[in-house]
Amino acid sequence: MQYLKETDLDYIAVGAAILGAGGGGDPYIGKLMAKQAIKKHGPVKLISADEVPDDGLVMPSAMMGAPAVMLEKLPNGAEPEFAFRSLEAYLQKKADAVLPIEAGGLNSCIPIYTAACLGLPLVDGDGMGRAFPELPMVTFGVGGVSATPMVVCDEKGNKMILETVTNDWSEILARTATVAMGLSSMISIYCMDGKTVKKYAVKGTISLAREIGRRIIESNKSKVNPIDAILEVTKGFRLFNGKIIDVKRDLTTGFVRGKVIIEGTDDDKGSTFELDFQNENLVGSRDGIPLAMTPDLITVLDREQGFPITTENLKYGQRSAVIGMPCDPFWRTEAGLNQVGPKYFKYDLEYKPIEELVKENAG
Amino acid sequence: MQYLKETDLDYIAVGAAILGAGGGGDPYIGKLMAKQAIKKHGPVKLISADEVPDDGLVMPSAMMGAPAVMLEKLPNGAEPEFAFRSLEAYLQKKADAVLPIEAGGLNSCIPIYTAACLGLPLVDGDGMGRAFPELPMVTFGVGGVSATPMVVCDEKGNKMILETVTNDWSEILARTATVAMGLSSMISIYCMDGKTVKKYAVKGTISLAREIGRRIIESNKSKVNPIDAILEVTKGFRLFNGKIIDVKRDLTTGFVRGKVIIEGTDDDKGSTFELDFQNENLVGSRDGIPLAMTPDLITVLDREQGFPITTENLKYGQRSAVIGMPCDPFWRTEAGLNQVGPKYFKYDLEYKPIEELVKENAG
Repeated sequence: MQYLKETDLDYIAVGAAILGAGGGGDPYIGKLMAKQAIKKHGPVKLISADEVPDDGLVMPSAMMGAPAVMLEKLPNGAEPEFAFRSLEAYLQKKADAVLPIEAGGLNSCIPIYTAACLGLPLVDGDGMGRAFPELPMVTFGVGGVSATPMVVCDEKGNKMILETVTNDWSEILARTATVAMGLSSMISIYCMDGKTVKKYAVKGTISLAREIGRRIIESNKSKVNPIDAILEVTKGFRLFNGKIIDVKRDLTTGFVRGKVIIEGTDDDKGSTFELDFQNENLVGSRDGIPLAMTPDLITVLDREQGFPITTENLKYGQRSAVIGMPCDPFWRTEAGLNQVGPKYFKYDLEYKPIEELVKENAG
Repeated sequence: MQYLKETDLDYIAVGAAILGAGGGGDPYIGKLMAKQAIKKHGPVKLISADEVPDDGLVMPSAMMGAPAVMLEKLPNGAEPEFAFRSLEAYLQKKADAVLPIEAGGLNSCIPIYTAACLGLPLVDGDGMGRAFPELPMVTFGVGGVSATPMVVCDEKGNKMILETVTNDWSEILARTATVAMGLSSMISIYCMDGKTVKKYAVKGTISLAREIGRRIIESNKSKVNPIDAILEVTKGFRLFNGKIIDVKRDLTTGFVRGKVIIEGTDDDKGSTFELDFQNENLVGSRDGIPLAMTPDLITVLDREQGFPITTENLKYGQRSAVIGMPCDPFWRTEAGLNQVGPKYFKYDLEYKPIEELVKENAG
């Protein structure tokens, strides 16, 4: 039986932010919240999706909105439990386990926090295997699970229960509410039975995040650059090395939307890398040629220590390495690409797996 | 025992639109809906506030948003019952009566429609004695009753249940949802017990609306101009006669906001009347001097037939008469003026009752 302890949170927060592909929120606040909850309530039991009873109720817990805002507008700490309990009350049923909706610094820690506070086990998996910006972009949703009933809460104590005709309407109504609440909220959404979790969840995300984070932190302790270790664990590719020379960001729509421009150094001297994001990094191109695109993962790392830089933390002058990692195979199916492929995000690009793009553009 | 029949709806729709002070929605669609429901389900029992048992549950039913939109985006007819039943289910309690939240063409007819569909009695009263644009602007709200739990529904079948920390937050969250739903929604809100209704409701609004409407329609049948009859029943004043020469309207915020300019004719020849509105008419001035201001009622009438013109129906060229009517005394208290007085709407004006303003500016 596995339990998540305080020290695991240091690993998970960093590793999940690598999988967050720029999104999923800065891990700092989520890590502090989860560590504090484990200190208070004890370690969180980590179970595999297969251990959830077929008819058990599984409820995801997450933060919604522009993660940049949470650097200033802190949660009061009661919202995740408030959202979770409100949804249980609405369903008139008790949840058997908490599930992360996505992999990402903040959004891998929030469900651990919720599980610790409520004394529930956490399912080792999630609905994306990475982070994505919109509510319908989860394996469960593509598989036909309704996002609602869902609950949206804010740090002031406001609560909204939604039942919508489509998951796109959940996104529209929860997003406008989140913007009105001050650009961030806590949600409970996509409640489902154990059978559905087994069928659709991306398995093992929490363990993977912990392993990635452990390798980064251990490498740094031994004064070794951890980027090779990250690429080994994630089967990823090094895409670019350089210095950030421009960052554009707009928060008004309830997302962090923007673009970062990186000037090449070392082997990439003379080249420029452009990376577009909407909470998560979407398309990364060297000198106008795409090297990786959604749904594959693109993450910007601190060049020296290999720590991930989420889109709200990108800054002029940062020495960075951009890496790309293949997404879960679910996203490469037709249904997956319809929901999260480059065309969905209005890019006039046919999806090509990162393995092919890297091979085509090598050397 | 009084019952509202189909013919009463012709009177109420017109009379309530007079009390709507430009707002409360064009009566046409609401009237058709209520008449059809009475034809199908039978007459609606009209009870006085005093007849509601102290512990009986009373639930208002209303349309929210920019009424102009409902001229094109029609309700599907199921929303009021859907909102009402959803709130009952959430409260796990059955309602004993329906209450209009405001007096206005559409929003006096919708609760009659709801009462007919559900076989419930309608309370002869409302929360304003007129129409106002924002959710906290009801006597109950000023008296401390929470707007939530409330339900917001749209014609597509989306549903939102809100519980907020203040009624201002209900307004913000329900308004942004209404805008996202396409600028109009149906709501159930301010559920309360019979004791509270007795204490705060503006009494007799439905009967008053029926009487005003009856006088207008009867006068027209006898080829008599009905404006004097309206002024008699409402204790109102004639403020201006003229032709509309300009209308500005903006719907994007979920309200109909704007201004109408009327060029004087007859006794008012050479003068100009300016009337500002936010769903409802707020301040009316002749040649820059206010003649009436919120919370007193200002209504624009068709000059010849005396029918009210709601703010979404104001048009260039309309021959019109502007009348003003004193509001319910509740709104003239300090608490009332804080919520709906001219300063609340950002006018740099001290409230003066219409009786005084008319006297000061006579001749």
